[in-house]
Order: sequence, then structure tokens, then C-alpha cells
Amino acid sequence: MTEFIPPATLFHALPSPFAIKRGGALHGARIAYETWGTLNAARDNAILILTGLSPSAHAASHAGNPEPGWWEAMIGPGKPIDTDRWFVICGNTIGSCKGSTGPASPRPASMQGTTGELYRLTFPELSIEDIANSAHALVHGLGIEQLACVIGCSMGGMSALAYAALHPRSARAQINISGAAQSLPFSIAIRSLQREAIRLDPKWSEGAYTDASYPENGMRMARKLGVITYRSSLEWSGRFGRVRLDGDHRDDDSPFGLEFQVESYLEGHARRFVRQFDPNCYLYLSRSMDWFDLSEYGDGDADAALCGIALDKALVIGVETDILFPLQQQQQLADGLRAGGADVSFAPLPSPQGHDAFLVDIARFGPVVGDFLAKLQ
Amino acid sequence: MTEFIPPATLFHALPSPFAIKRGGALHGARIAYETWGTLNAARDNAILILTGLSPSAHAASHAGNPEPGWWEAMIGPGKPIDTDRWFVICGNTIGSCKGSTGPASPRPASMQGTTGELYRLTFPELSIEDIANSAHALVHGLGIEQLACVIGCSMGGMSALAYAALHPRSARAQINISGAAQSLPFSIAIRSLQREAIRLDPKWSEGAYTDASYPENGMRMARKLGVITYRSSLEWSGRFGRVRLDGDHRDDDSPFGLEFQVESYLEGHARRFVRQFDPNCYLYLSRSMDWFDLSEYGDGDADAALCGIALDKALVIGVETDILFPLQQQQQLADGLRAGGADVSFAPLPSPQGHDAFLVDIARFGPVVGDFLAKLQ
Repeated sequence: MTEFIPPATLFHALPSPFAIKRGGALHGARIAYETWGTLNAARDNAILILTGLSPSAHAASHAGNPEPGWWEAMIGPGKPIDTDRWFVICGNTIGSCKGSTGPASPRPASMQGTTGELYRLTFPELSIEDIANSAHALVHGLGIEQLACVIGCSMGGMSALAYAALHPRSARAQINISGAAQSLPFSIAIRSLQREAIRLDPKWSEGAYTDASYPENGMRMARKLGVITYRSSLEWSGRFGRVRLDGDHRDDDSPFGLEFQVESYLEGHARRFVRQFDPNCYLYLSRSMDWFDLSEYGDGDADAALCGIALDKALVIGVETDILFPLQQQQQLADGLRAGGADVSFAPLPSPQGHDAFLVDIARFGPVVGDFLAKLQ
Repeated sequence: MTEFIPPATLFHALPSPFAIKRGGALHGARIAYETWGTLNAARDNAILILTGLSPSAHAASHAGNPEPGWWEAMIGPGKPIDTDRWFVICGNTIGSCKGSTGPASPRPASMQGTTGELYRLTFPELSIEDIANSAHALVHGLGIEQLACVIGCSMGGMSALAYAALHPRSARAQINISGAAQSLPFSIAIRSLQREAIRLDPKWSEGAYTDASYPENGMRMARKLGVITYRSSLEWSGRFGRVRLDGDHRDDDSPFGLEFQVESYLEGHARRFVRQFDPNCYLYLSRSMDWFDLSEYGDGDADAALCGIALDKALVIGVETDILFPLQQQQQLADGLRAGGADVSFAPLPSPQGHDAFLVDIARFGPVVGDFLAKLQ
């Protein structure tokens, strides 16, 4: 299978066995990560970034890999996450396919019938809590007792909450961006449909696909539906309107082929993604979001669970046009963390780019994140 | 192929040839319709209902077919569309599969190579304007010079605008419900993905499927995506929350099978739909909505086109939670029709059920429609 590991990625061996929340354990598992800046002598200037579903650990360029990262404009000397001051760590989530152990990784020798066999659907059912615990093991392994801040975006916002709930006082502050305390049925429905598109593709083959016989169509559908729900109607009305493709860019003469710019945009996004992310990993990580429910840590009450999280300071950012993790969910986080005693800033941003705004609307996100970190002790 | 024609449906032969906007013509085509109430001697009490994509002409029960119709609570004696006063006509749109001529209909003898062959993808490219023109031919055929009111819901709201633009003074009033002057890129993207799901299903076979080899999976995906965008996150959070199915209702032990109530709800909707609507008809009607752009009647300006529509009165209804035809689009209709001289009422309703609210939130829609019609001359 294709490897998706950026050059100069570092690896940390997880404790073995590494217990998995819903049952079972990983043996000989690892987490891929990258760092920027320098850990100070007091080891108290570290920031951990927890990512959304698909990014690698390569959040920004560095000497070992000058390629721009997925959050290039946010991380670096003098940037909002200022690496002149902070030691920044970004891990690839376990369950992913970009260096950390996941369904696309070889199974350990103890499990294997055949040498080199991949986990595929024998990977244990993955939870957001497993992602949080593995990231905590990485931070601990780097000799850091307490982080200055955890920053979680999208799925990473869920991971950041799990990190704080499971490891009290493991960080002094948290920046939670377009996150949620639990998945709502609308987002579960969207993800369920994305998974169904992959599973219905005959080439998915119950997870036993190969590079030569690969569920491209299922992945394309899943990605297009993702992109539709990551952005917003408002943005697209301004960006594409009803503009048609010129004749050279239409794919065929069928009345059902690509005709509008927005259709071509989706197709381009999908084509770039389908071979860059492993379909089984996608299924596992997608389902982990459906299952996440912080109320498990508050006797069934998410507000109580938030109130039980101890932080000095928190910044919660949401986007008014986000249909996947709507603004009420970030309002809930801000209110709940404040009730728990944290000094909370809530920033509802009017970005038109919906759930994806943190990746592209740096003009709005940069100052909010930068100001918060600049004032952090 | 399965027939989807309700009992006691009436048929009206369209002029032959019936010219099609994007080229070509239909020969020997017909439109299926039903009526309620009695046309008065002055022939001035007729109301035409133009439907969304999938309904049949059976909007309500009547002596010939006591089965409840798709708008049963709205149409009947003493109901908001009061058949003691009004003569109500509902047509099945051409291009559909519920009695009117469409891609699932037999081709006329003049076109056929083989007797009994269906149009399938040889059906001409269908526009909303063709739907409007065929409905106008039906009304004219019933001996009605001017309608008291045209009521259009969803796609029917587009058809109602086309009807008014193409046939000036053909109706004194219009009720436009969750309609739009043109499709925005977000709704085009959703529909494009629905069509792609059908076209990617190997059993679609470029439109040459049979009952035995039928694109069930593609239709299921298309329908689920439809239902997701027809309702709202708000409704589902209240209705389903994070409730799980009990063990008896889970479809399998896979971590990716149906687990949450919302997933089962979508599956139920999809199963009821896939064999009740013809896939090729779905493709044609879906694309006709993407193409619709009232600005063609205003030198490229939709507002100018609306201003050119002559009505005595109009009621425009939109729903705050509608993500497919968002409220700004109905605001545009109200403003534009008012600028054209109509006495316009605009009713933005807070229904939680999104685009589908007119079908289910009768408590809100009934009084608004009923009051408007009661005051109509």
C-alpha cells in the first residue's frame, strides 16, 4: 500500500501493550510526530497540536522538511503560534495512515498469520480517547509533565477535551477550535453516508483492497460530501455563483457531467484526496467521532463533564457558518469550561468558510490565537 | 419497469409536438393530474399546485382514490386550500414517472426501433420551463383562462416562477413555498453528488437498468443525502439526539453498521424511496433544477426578472432552517415580486424541519396559506 509519511517525521513508541478503550490493545504501536522550536530548561513552554481527521504531523515546514505544512501560516517564528517562544509538537493521530499505527499498518508479529499482513478491519475499534491517550504518551515520552497549551481543531477539538478529561492538569490552557463535546445526529448522518459510500464500493472488498483494486469511487463520494459540509453555502455563492466551465473543461457531453464550476471544484478536491488517505483509516477515524461523547465523564451530562475539566485559561473558537460543528457546540464548550473555573475567551468568528475556516481564514484566526498565546503565562 | 401511477389519475394529452426548451420535442406526450372541488361557471376559482421533485399528482384523497395524498392536511373541504371554494388541480411534472411522460415512459412509435422501448437517456434535456409549459397546457385544456392562484413548493416554486414569467397574467396570485429564482452552488453541489451516486452504481448501466438489475445502492445514497438536506440539524438534535438502536434493530456487528437512531431513520427513508422513483427521471429532474435561472428573463438579473412578473397578490414562505433553499432566496422572491407591483406577504417560518417543513409542519403552514387564500378575490 502507498505510504503517506512526510520526510523527516519522528516516531515515538507507545507503551506496549497500549490499551484501547473499546477493548483490546495495540502491541508495538507508534505515533508519528514533528516538532518546532526548542523545549526550554523548565520544560514548561510546550504546545501540543491535535489535528482533524486527515492531516499528517507536518503542520509547518522546518529544516528537515521545507515543504509547507497544513497550518503553515500559523506556526513559525513570529507567527501566531510563535516558535521563538514555544516548543510545538504535532502528532499524527493513531488510526491514521501518515506514520502512526492504524488500520493500514502491518500487524505485529504476534498477530500475524502471514508476514507483512496489514491490520485492515482487524484493527481494534478506535475512540477519540485512544487518540488522546496516545498523544499524552508522546508528550510524557518527550519529558514534559505539563503542557502550556493543547490546541485542537475539529476532531482534534474532541481529542483535546478527552485529553483534559483523562489527564487532569496535563495542560494549563486549551485552544479549542471548531470542536464539540459530542457529535450531533446531523454530523453522524453525514459521516454515516460517507462511510456507506466507501463500503458500497465493490472495490472496498470488506477492507481487503489493493493499490490495483482500490475503492476510488467510494472515496471520491466521501470526500465530496466532506468538502460540501466543511465549507458553506455563503462562501460558494460568492466564489462560484452559477459560473459554468468552458467547453475545454467539461468532462463529457452528458447532461449529467461536470458543467458548473462548483462541480469541478469538488471533483478536483476529491481526486487529490482519494489516493492520499487510506479508506479503512478513514472509516475508523470517522466512526470514532460519532462515538465521542464527553458526557461519559459527567454522569451522562456533557456540561457537568466540561465543568470537571481544570484549566487556567481557555480559548474557544467557532465559526458562524459551520454546519458540521455548529456554533452552539462551541458556545457550550466555552460556557462549560468557564463553569469549571477557567478564564475563557469565546470567539465566534464570521468567516464564510464554515468548518474549514481555521485552515484558510488566517486573517481572522491568526490574531485571535496569537493574542491568546501572547498573554499566556 | 414498475408503474408508479396512483389509481384514478386523469391524463391530458399535450400538444404534439410539444417543444422542449433546450432542443427537441415530445410527440404524443401526456400529463397526469388530479382535481378536487368544482370549477365554477365563471371558471375563475381554479388553483394549480406545482410539486417538488418526487410527488405524484395525488396531493389529497378524493372519491376515486381514498388513500391520503402527499399534502392531505392542506387540501379538502374546510382545509387551508378549501375545496368547498376552490377547484384545485395538481399535475405530476413531466419528466417524472408517476403518469406524466418522462424518461421511464415508452417512446412514441415514430422514435422506436423496438416496440415498447423506453426513452431512458434519449429523453430530451428537461428544463423547469418545460414543466411550467406543460402545466399551462393542462390548465388551458381544462378551459381555464386565468388561475386564481398558482401554488409551488420547492422545485414547484421554481416552476411557479417560470409559469408566471412565460405566461403573463395566467394567474392572479402565487404562493411560493421554499422556492428560489435560481439554484445556488451549494444546492447544485448536493444534487451533483446525488446524481453521481446513481451514475456510479454499476447497475445504473448508463440508464439501461431493469427491475432485476436496478441501481438500488445509488438511489439509496441519493435519497439519504436528500433527506439530510431536506431536514435540519436542529430538528434531528431534538428528535434523535445520540440515541442508539437496541440490539434487535442493528443490522450487523460491524463497527460501521447502523448503530444510531438517525442512521436507521435515513435507511428507512431510503428503502421506501429507491423502488418508488425511477432513477433516470430522478437524474433529469435533478439537473433541471440546477439549470433553472430566472435571470434569463431579466437580461441576466434575477431581480429584474421578478420585477417583470405581474401578479395581484403573492405569498412567499420560507423556513429559517432550510439549508437547501435558504431563506435569503425567499426574501429575494418577496422583494422582487413586490417591486413588480404585487401585494406581497412574506412569511419566514421558524419551523425546525428545514426544506421539508411544508410537508410536515402543517400547524405553521396551514394558517398562513389558509389566511392568504381566504382573503383572495
